[in-house]
Amino acid sequence: MRDGLRETSRTKLRRRADRGSFDRDLADAILDEALVAHVGFVVDGRPRVLPMTYGRVDDALYLHGAVGNGMLRASIGADVCVTVTLLDGLVLARAAMHHSMNYRCVVLYGRAERVDGEAEKRRAFDAVVEHSVTGRSAVARPANDVELRKTLVLRVPIEEGSVKVRATGPVDDEDDLGLPVWSGVIPVQLVRGEPVRDAGAITR
Amino acid sequence: MRDGLRETSRTKLRRRADRGSFDRDLADAILDEALVAHVGFVVDGRPRVLPMTYGRVDDALYLHGAVGNGMLRASIGADVCVTVTLLDGLVLARAAMHHSMNYRCVVLYGRAERVDGEAEKRRAFDAVVEHSVTGRSAVARPANDVELRKTLVLRVPIEEGSVKVRATGPVDDEDDLGLPVWSGVIPVQLVRGEPVRDAGAITR
Repeated sequence: MRDGLRETSRTKLRRRADRGSFDRDLADAILDEALVAHVGFVVDGRPRVLPMTYGRVDDALYLHGAVGNGMLRASIGADVCVTVTLLDGLVLARAAMHHSMNYRCVVLYGRAERVDGEAEKRRAFDAVVEHSVTGRSAVARPANDVELRKTLVLRVPIEEGSVKVRATGPVDDEDDLGLPVWSGVIPVQLVRGEPVRDAGAITR
Repeated sequence: MRDGLRETSRTKLRRRADRGSFDRDLADAILDEALVAHVGFVVDGRPRVLPMTYGRVDDALYLHGAVGNGMLRASIGADVCVTVTLLDGLVLARAAMHHSMNYRCVVLYGRAERVDGEAEKRRAFDAVVEHSVTGRSAVARPANDVELRKTLVLRVPIEEGSVKVRATGPVDDEDDLGLPVWSGVIPVQLVRGEPVRDAGAITR
């Protein structure tokens, strides 16, 4: 059996442990389906959370940005937290208090390391492009050497972390079951629309 | 004119300043449309990011959870970062390097304060329920005193922060415009599906 995510003092499931797991396949499925990660940094002792695109190759999650990106530069060798959430439903209970959300979420903790080797950098880059549209990295003009040099790629190991999933209907108090209040789940889903071709007017 | 979000050393826009603003109305619109916030905390000097539901009332963003939630309890009086992101599109450029996302994002920084007054606690609570389904707080059974006591509500001021928006097609190098590569935007949107009524079998 495949190794799960590593349970540590940080990833130990405290609240709602019944919703949690360390299942690596489940973690990978969530990471591969979602499109945006929320990456947490500590800046001057205070938290900062930014949305970022990412790519996954085996046990590595890759982030990238311009070499001049101060936030990314400051994260080299530093602890980050990468959280990826898929919202699946709004859970409407009979009681206001028991309203909830259905979701699948991965929280990864790790040290971000700079990727220096060109081959790995290219793999990471392809993974980020592939992540939003499968097959895209074979179609788009690949990064040239100048572009690669201008890009900072960070690797976060997919190792220490946990998964949480809520995927059921509302859980109400027995006393409330007779209330004349609609209860159930409104499914929500990120849907892709009709592609809009670029007019090609804007260039850098 | 309404005051904008406050620009500070934390919120100063460094990268892609052209995408940024401090527009309060825009910030509110994003906060009101999105359903999940990613909240950043610092735990033992390291970052932690968790997805949370939230509600907004005027200049306050409210988070809530069980009184026993250690993460929330530890955040009383502490700095948090609340980031809310709406993904609007996948931007496919001709060059791999210029692939991007269209998005609207609010990043708020502030000290989380515990809400103790019952009236404000109820307002916060209603706002969280209203946030996912308008009108719902008037329908669901309101929280009773025991439930309110068991719930920790935190207030984060909507004051220091910034907004970033990308909402255009791909921006390619002029040399790449002639490449036979499809380029454009695939719109993405969080869509609500057909509500699924609860069978009422699960109770706590």
